[in-house]
Amino acid sequence: MPGYTGTKDDYLKRLRRIEGQVRGIARMVDEDVYCIDVLTQVSAVTKALQAVSLGLMEDHLAHCVVDAARESHEAGDAKVREAAEAIARLVRS
Amino acid sequence: MPGYTGTKDDYLKRLRRIEGQVRGIARMVDEDVYCIDVLTQVSAVTKALQAVSLGLMEDHLAHCVVDAARESHEAGDAKVREAAEAIARLVRS
Amino acid sequence: MPGYTGTKDDYLKRLRRIEGQVRGIARMVDEDVYCIDVLTQVSAVTKALQAVSLGLMEDHLAHCVVDAARESHEAGDAKVREAAEAIARLVRS
Amino acid sequence: MPGYTGTKDDYLKRLRRIEGQVRGIARMVDEDVYCIDVLTQVSAVTKALQAVSLGLMEDHLAHCVVDAARESHEAGDAKVREAAEAIARLVRS
Repeated sequence: MPGYTGTKDDYLKRLRRIEGQVRGIARMVDEDVYCIDVLTQVSAVTKALQAVSLGLMEDHLAHCVVDAARESHEAGDAKVREAAEAIARLVRS
Repeated sequence: MPGYTGTKDDYLKRLRRIEGQVRGIARMVDEDVYCIDVLTQVSAVTKALQAVSLGLMEDHLAHCVVDAARESHEAGDAKVREAAEAIARLVRS
Repeated sequence: MPGYTGTKDDYLKRLRRIEGQVRGIARMVDEDVYCIDVLTQVSAVTKALQAVSLGLMEDHLAHCVVDAARESHEAGDAKVREAAEAIARLVRS
Repeated sequence: MPGYTGTKDDYLKRLRRIEGQVRGIARMVDEDVYCIDVLTQVSAVTKALQAVSLGLMEDHLAHCVVDAARESHEAGDAKVREAAEAIARLVRS
Protein backbone atom coordinates (compact mmCIF):
# COMPACT_ATOMS: atom_id res chain seq x y z
CA MET A 1 0.00 0.00 0.00
CA PRO A 2 1.34 3.53 -0.73
CA GLY A 3 2.33 5.84 2.11
CA TYR A 4 -0.73 8.08 1.63
CA THR A 5 -3.30 5.36 2.19
CA GLY A 6 -4.29 6.74 5.58
CA THR A 7 -5.04 10.22 4.17
CA LYS A 8 -6.30 9.20 0.74
CA ASP A 9 -9.77 10.72 1.02
CA ASP A 10 -8.33 14.07 2.03
CA TYR A 11 -6.05 14.10 -1.03
CA LEU A 12 -8.97 13.19 -3.30
CA LYS A 13 -11.06 16.03 -1.87
CA ARG A 14 -8.19 18.52 -2.32
CA LEU A 15 -7.49 17.36 -5.87
CA ARG A 16 -11.16 17.74 -6.82
CA ARG A 17 -11.09 21.29 -5.44
CA ILE A 18 -7.91 22.05 -7.43
CA GLU A 19 -9.54 20.65 -10.57
CA GLY A 20 -12.47 23.02 -10.01
CA GLN A 21 -10.08 25.94 -9.48
CA VAL A 22 -8.34 25.19 -12.80
CA ARG A 23 -11.74 25.13 -14.50
CA GLY A 24 -12.44 28.47 -12.82
CA ILE A 25 -9.25 29.95 -14.26
CA ALA A 26 -10.29 28.84 -17.74
CA ARG A 27 -13.62 30.59 -17.22
CA MET A 28 -11.81 33.78 -16.16
CA VAL A 29 -9.69 33.67 -19.33
CA ASP A 30 -12.79 32.97 -21.41
CA GLU A 31 -14.46 36.04 -19.88
CA ASP A 32 -11.41 38.28 -20.51
CA VAL A 33 -10.79 38.87 -16.82
CA TYR A 34 -7.86 41.21 -16.03
CA CYS A 35 -4.47 39.42 -16.32
CA ILE A 36 -3.35 40.11 -12.75
CA ASP A 37 -6.53 38.54 -11.31
CA VAL A 38 -6.00 35.43 -13.43
CA LEU A 39 -2.34 35.28 -12.31
CA THR A 40 -3.41 35.54 -8.67
CA GLN A 41 -5.65 32.52 -9.12
CA VAL A 42 -2.93 30.51 -10.85
CA SER A 43 -0.56 31.23 -7.93
CA ALA A 44 -3.26 30.00 -5.53
CA VAL A 45 -3.62 26.72 -7.46
CA THR A 46 0.16 26.27 -7.58
CA LYS A 47 0.31 26.69 -3.79
CA ALA A 48 -2.51 24.15 -3.32
CA LEU A 49 -0.66 21.64 -5.52
CA GLN A 50 2.54 22.31 -3.60
CA ALA A 51 0.76 21.50 -0.33
CA VAL A 52 -0.48 18.20 -1.82
CA SER A 53 3.08 17.37 -2.89
CA LEU A 54 4.54 18.16 0.52
CA GLY A 55 1.90 15.98 2.17
CA LEU A 56 2.54 13.08 -0.20
CA MET A 57 6.29 13.44 0.37
CA GLU A 58 5.94 13.32 4.14
CA ASP A 59 3.68 10.27 3.94
CA HIS A 60 6.18 8.60 1.62
CA LEU A 61 9.10 9.27 3.96
CA ALA A 62 7.09 8.16 7.02
CA HIS A 63 6.08 4.84 5.47
CA CYS A 64 7.83 3.67 2.31
CA VAL A 65 11.30 5.08 3.08
CA VAL A 66 11.31 4.25 6.78
CA ASP A 67 9.99 0.70 6.19
CA ALA A 68 12.66 0.08 3.57
CA ALA A 69 15.34 1.36 5.97
CA ARG A 70 14.26 -1.17 8.56
CA GLU A 71 14.24 -3.93 5.98
CA SER A 72 17.88 -3.51 4.82
CA HIS A 73 20.59 -0.88 4.21
CA GLU A 74 20.34 -1.43 0.46
CA ALA A 75 16.57 -1.01 0.42
CA GLY A 76 16.82 2.09 2.61
CA ASP A 77 19.53 3.68 0.46
CA ALA A 78 17.56 3.07 -2.74
CA LYS A 79 14.40 4.64 -1.29
CA VAL A 80 16.34 7.66 0.01
CA ARG A 81 17.94 8.21 -3.42
CA GLU A 82 14.53 8.00 -5.09
CA ALA A 83 12.98 10.39 -2.55
CA ALA A 84 15.87 12.86 -2.97
CA GLU A 85 15.23 12.96 -6.73
CA ALA A 86 11.53 13.58 -6.15
CA ILE A 87 12.38 16.38 -3.68
CA ALA A 88 14.65 17.93 -6.34
CA ARG A 89 11.82 17.85 -8.91
CA LEU A 90 9.50 19.40 -6.34
CA VAL A 91 11.97 22.19 -5.52
CA ARG A 92 12.63 22.91 -9.20
CA SER A 93 9.02 22.94 -10.31
CA MET B 1 -9.14 43.95 -23.45
CA PRO B 2 -6.60 41.96 -21.34
CA GLY B 3 -3.05 41.46 -22.57
CA TYR B 4 -3.65 37.77 -23.39
CA THR B 5 -6.47 38.36 -25.86
CA GLY B 6 -4.30 37.44 -28.83
CA THR B 7 -3.35 34.05 -27.34
CA LYS B 8 -6.57 33.29 -25.48
CA ASP B 9 -7.43 30.06 -27.28
CA ASP B 10 -4.00 28.65 -26.59
CA TYR B 11 -4.39 29.36 -22.86
CA LEU B 12 -7.85 27.77 -22.84
CA LYS B 13 -6.45 24.62 -24.51
CA ARG B 14 -3.56 24.41 -22.04
CA LEU B 15 -5.86 24.95 -19.04
CA ARG B 16 -8.20 22.20 -20.22
CA ARG B 17 -5.21 19.86 -20.51
CA ILE B 18 -4.05 20.82 -17.00
CA GLU B 19 -7.55 20.19 -15.68
CA GLY B 20 -7.42 16.70 -17.22
CA GLN B 21 -3.99 16.09 -15.68
CA VAL B 22 -5.30 17.00 -12.23
CA ARG B 23 -8.19 14.58 -12.74
CA GLY B 24 -5.60 11.97 -13.75
CA ILE B 25 -3.67 12.53 -10.50
CA ALA B 26 -6.86 11.97 -8.52
CA ARG B 27 -7.37 8.69 -10.40
CA MET B 28 -3.78 7.64 -9.56
CA VAL B 29 -4.42 8.34 -5.87
CA ASP B 30 -7.73 6.50 -6.03
CA GLU B 31 -5.94 3.48 -7.54
CA ASP B 32 -3.19 3.55 -4.85
CA VAL B 33 -0.43 4.28 -7.35
CA TYR B 34 3.09 4.50 -5.86
CA CYS B 35 3.73 7.87 -4.15
CA ILE B 36 6.74 8.84 -6.26
CA ASP B 37 4.79 8.37 -9.50
CA VAL B 38 2.00 10.59 -8.18
CA LEU B 39 4.57 13.19 -7.11
CA THR B 40 6.14 13.14 -10.57
CA GLN B 41 2.76 13.94 -12.11
CA VAL B 42 2.10 16.76 -9.65
CA SER B 43 5.47 18.31 -10.55
CA ALA B 44 4.51 18.10 -14.24
CA VAL B 45 1.24 19.93 -13.59
CA THR B 46 3.01 22.58 -11.51
CA LYS B 47 5.43 23.19 -14.39
CA ALA B 48 2.54 23.46 -16.88
CA LEU B 49 0.82 26.01 -14.63
CA GLN B 50 4.09 27.90 -14.27
CA ALA B 51 4.39 28.14 -18.05
CA VAL B 52 0.84 29.53 -18.26
CA SER B 53 1.73 32.13 -15.61
CA LEU B 54 4.91 33.17 -17.39
CA GLY B 55 3.00 33.55 -20.66
CA LEU B 56 0.25 35.61 -19.03
CA MET B 57 2.89 37.79 -17.35
CA GLU B 58 4.70 38.49 -20.60
CA ASP B 59 1.43 39.34 -22.34
CA HIS B 60 0.53 41.64 -19.47
CA LEU B 61 3.88 43.45 -19.60
CA ALA B 62 3.73 43.71 -23.40
CA HIS B 63 0.27 45.25 -23.45
CA CYS B 64 -1.22 46.54 -20.19
CA VAL B 65 2.04 47.80 -18.60
CA VAL B 66 3.56 49.22 -21.76
CA ASP B 67 0.30 50.94 -22.78
CA ALA B 68 -0.03 52.51 -19.33
CA ALA B 69 3.57 53.73 -19.52
CA ARG B 70 2.84 55.52 -22.76
CA GLU B 71 -0.30 57.04 -21.29
CA SER B 72 1.37 58.72 -18.26
CA HIS B 73 4.16 58.28 -15.69
CA GLU B 74 1.62 57.74 -12.93
CA ALA B 75 -0.26 55.08 -14.90
CA GLY B 76 2.99 53.36 -15.84
CA ASP B 77 4.33 53.36 -12.27
CA ALA B 78 1.08 51.92 -10.89
CA LYS B 79 1.07 49.10 -13.46
CA VAL B 80 4.75 48.29 -12.77
CA ARG B 81 4.09 48.12 -9.01
CA GLU B 82 1.13 45.80 -9.59
CA ALA B 83 3.13 43.59 -11.98
CA ALA B 84 6.05 43.41 -9.51
CA GLU B 85 3.69 42.13 -6.80
CA ALA B 86 2.32 39.50 -9.18
CA ILE B 87 5.88 38.44 -10.08
CA ALA B 88 6.66 38.11 -6.35
CA ARG B 89 3.59 35.86 -5.85
CA LEU B 90 4.68 33.81 -8.86
CA VAL B 91 8.23 33.41 -7.56
CA ARG B 92 7.03 32.48 -4.07
CA SER B 93 4.39 29.98 -5.16
CA MET C 1 22.33 54.13 -16.01
CA PRO C 2 20.73 50.85 -14.80
CA GLY C 3 17.26 50.86 -13.25
CA TYR C 4 18.61 50.23 -9.74
CA THR C 5 20.79 53.31 -9.59
CA GLY C 6 18.46 55.02 -7.12
CA THR C 7 18.62 52.11 -4.65
CA LYS C 8 22.18 50.97 -5.31
CA ASP C 9 23.51 51.46 -1.77
CA ASP C 10 20.68 49.42 -0.32
CA TYR C 11 21.46 46.52 -2.69
CA LEU C 12 25.16 46.71 -1.81
CA LYS C 13 24.34 46.57 1.91
CA ARG C 14 22.00 43.60 1.41
CA LEU C 15 24.53 41.75 -0.74
CA ARG C 16 27.27 42.24 1.86
CA ARG C 17 24.91 40.81 4.52
CA ILE C 18 24.13 37.81 2.27
CA GLU C 19 27.85 37.26 1.70
CA GLY C 20 28.32 37.18 5.48
CA GLN C 21 25.44 34.74 5.85
CA VAL C 22 27.01 32.38 3.29
CA ARG C 23 30.29 32.57 5.23
CA GLY C 24 28.27 31.77 8.36
CA ILE C 25 26.81 28.66 6.71
CA ALA C 26 30.31 27.46 5.84
CA ARG C 27 31.30 27.92 9.48
CA MET C 28 28.26 25.86 10.57
CA VAL C 29 29.28 23.05 8.21
CA ASP C 30 32.88 23.28 9.40
CA GLU C 31 31.67 22.94 13.00
CA ASP C 32 29.44 19.91 12.16
CA VAL C 33 26.23 21.74 13.05
CA TYR C 34 23.04 19.65 12.74
CA CYS C 35 21.87 19.36 9.10
CA ILE C 36 18.42 20.88 9.66
CA ASP C 37 19.89 24.02 11.23
CA VAL C 38 22.23 24.44 8.25
CA LEU C 39 19.29 23.91 5.86
CA THR C 40 17.26 26.55 7.71
CA GLN C 41 20.05 29.06 7.18
CA VAL C 42 20.39 28.20 3.49
CA SER C 43 16.63 28.79 3.04
CA ALA C 44 17.03 32.19 4.73
CA VAL C 45 19.82 33.17 2.32
CA THR C 46 17.80 31.98 -0.67
CA LYS C 47 14.88 34.15 0.45
CA ALA C 48 17.19 37.17 0.89
CA LEU C 49 18.57 36.65 -2.62
CA GLN C 50 15.03 36.29 -3.96
CA ALA C 51 14.10 39.64 -2.42
CA VAL C 52 17.13 41.26 -4.11
CA SER C 53 16.04 39.75 -7.44
CA LEU C 54 12.46 40.96 -7.07
CA GLY C 55 13.70 44.47 -6.25
CA LEU C 56 16.07 44.55 -9.21
CA MET C 57 13.27 43.28 -11.47
CA GLU C 58 10.87 46.00 -10.36
CA ASP C 59 13.52 48.69 -10.81
CA HIS C 60 14.27 47.30 -14.27
CA LEU C 61 10.60 47.33 -15.28
CA ALA C 62 10.08 50.82 -13.83
CA HIS C 63 13.00 52.33 -15.71
CA CYS C 64 14.61 50.36 -18.52
CA VAL C 65 11.45 48.66 -19.84
CA VAL C 66 9.16 51.64 -19.46
CA ASP C 67 11.70 54.06 -21.00
CA ALA C 68 12.15 51.74 -23.98
CA ALA C 69 8.38 51.49 -24.42
CA ARG C 70 8.14 55.25 -24.65
CA GLU C 71 11.01 55.35 -27.12
CA SER C 72 9.47 52.96 -29.70
CA HIS C 73 7.29 49.84 -30.04
CA GLU C 74 10.28 47.82 -31.19
CA ALA C 75 12.44 48.91 -28.25
CA GLY C 76 9.59 48.24 -25.83
CA ASP C 77 8.86 44.77 -27.22
CA ALA C 78 12.55 43.77 -27.07
CA LYS C 79 12.85 44.88 -23.43
CA VAL C 80 9.62 43.05 -22.48
CA ARG C 81 10.88 39.83 -24.11
CA GLU C 82 14.20 40.12 -22.26
CA ALA C 83 12.45 40.85 -18.94
CA ALA C 84 10.08 37.88 -19.45
CA GLU C 85 13.06 35.54 -19.89
CA ALA C 86 14.66 36.92 -16.72
CA ILE C 87 11.37 36.40 -14.84
CA ALA C 88 11.28 32.79 -16.09
CA ARG C 89 14.84 32.20 -14.80
CA LEU C 90 13.85 33.75 -11.49
CA VAL C 91 10.75 31.57 -11.18
CA ARG C 92 12.67 28.42 -12.10
CA SER C 93 15.62 29.01 -9.81
CA MET D 1 28.02 13.43 13.59
CA PRO D 2 25.76 15.18 11.01
CA GLY D 3 24.69 13.36 7.86
CA TYR D 4 26.97 15.43 5.64
CA THR D 5 30.20 14.48 7.38
CA GLY D 6 31.32 12.31 4.49
CA THR D 7 30.97 15.14 1.95
CA LYS D 8 31.88 18.06 4.19
CA ASP D 9 34.87 19.29 2.21
CA ASP D 10 32.84 19.40 -0.96
CA TYR D 11 30.17 21.55 0.72
CA LEU D 12 32.83 23.89 2.11
CA LYS D 13 34.34 24.29 -1.38
CA ARG D 14 30.93 24.99 -2.92
CA LEU D 15 29.99 27.49 -0.19
CA ARG D 16 33.27 29.37 -0.67
CA ARG D 17 32.52 29.58 -4.40
CA ILE D 18 29.01 30.86 -3.69
CA GLU D 19 30.43 33.44 -1.30
CA GLY D 20 32.74 34.64 -4.09
CA GLN D 21 29.80 34.77 -6.53
CA VAL D 22 27.81 36.96 -4.11
CA ARG D 23 30.82 39.27 -3.82
CA GLY D 24 30.94 39.31 -7.63
CA ILE D 25 27.28 40.39 -7.80
CA ALA D 26 28.02 43.26 -5.42
CA ARG D 27 30.86 44.32 -7.70
CA MET D 28 28.50 44.24 -10.72
CA VAL D 29 26.03 46.47 -8.87
CA ASP D 30 28.83 48.79 -7.79
CA GLU D 31 29.93 49.08 -11.43
CA ASP D 32 26.36 49.79 -12.65
CA VAL D 33 26.19 46.64 -14.75
CA TYR D 34 22.93 46.17 -16.71
CA CYS D 35 20.08 44.87 -14.48
CA ILE D 36 19.40 41.71 -16.51
CA ASP D 37 23.04 40.60 -16.28
CA VAL D 38 22.96 41.07 -12.50
CA LEU D 39 19.67 39.13 -12.32
CA THR D 40 21.19 36.28 -14.34
CA GLN D 41 24.03 36.00 -11.82
CA VAL D 42 21.63 36.05 -8.86
CA SER D 43 19.66 33.18 -10.44
CA ALA D 44 22.91 31.24 -10.84
CA VAL D 45 23.76 31.70 -7.14
CA THR D 46 20.22 30.69 -6.11
CA LYS D 47 20.58 27.49 -8.16
CA ALA D 48 23.97 26.74 -6.55
CA LEU D 49 22.47 27.21 -3.09
CA GLN D 50 19.54 25.01 -4.05
CA ALA D 51 21.94 22.24 -5.07
CA VAL D 52 23.71 22.52 -1.69
CA SER D 53 20.34 22.25 0.06
CA LEU D 54 19.28 19.21 -1.94
CA GLY D 55 22.59 17.52 -1.16
CA LEU D 56 22.34 18.27 2.55
CA MET D 57 18.75 17.00 2.56
CA GLU D 58 19.69 13.70 0.92
CA ASP D 59 22.60 13.22 3.35
CA HIS D 60 20.25 13.97 6.24
CA LEU D 61 17.65 11.46 5.04
CA ALA D 62 20.32 8.82 4.35
CA HIS D 63 21.86 9.07 7.80
CA CYS D 64 19.99 10.95 10.53
CA VAL D 65 16.45 9.97 9.47
CA VAL D 66 17.23 6.38 8.53
CA ASP D 67 19.28 5.80 11.71
CA ALA D 68 16.47 7.18 13.86
CA ALA D 69 13.97 4.92 12.07
CA ARG D 70 16.04 1.89 12.96
CA GLU D 71 16.34 3.06 16.55
CA SER D 72 12.57 3.33 17.24
CA HIS D 73 9.23 4.27 15.65
CA GLU D 74 9.03 7.39 17.78
CA ALA D 75 12.53 8.55 16.84
CA GLY D 76 11.84 7.83 13.17
CA ASP D 77 8.52 9.69 13.15
CA ALA D 78 10.06 12.74 14.82
CA LYS D 79 12.90 12.90 12.31
CA VAL D 80 10.51 12.49 9.36
CA ARG D 81 8.31 15.33 10.67
CA GLU D 82 11.36 17.57 11.07
CA ALA D 83 12.65 16.68 7.59
CA ALA D 84 9.22 17.35 6.05
CA GLU D 85 9.21 20.85 7.55
CA ALA D 86 12.69 21.50 6.18
CA ILE D 87 11.57 20.26 2.73
CA ALA D 88 8.60 22.66 2.90
CA ARG D 89 10.93 25.59 3.70
CA LEU D 90 13.17 24.53 0.83
CA VAL D 91 10.25 24.34 -1.61
CA ARG D 92 8.87 27.70 -0.49
CA SER D 93 12.14 29.57 -0.59
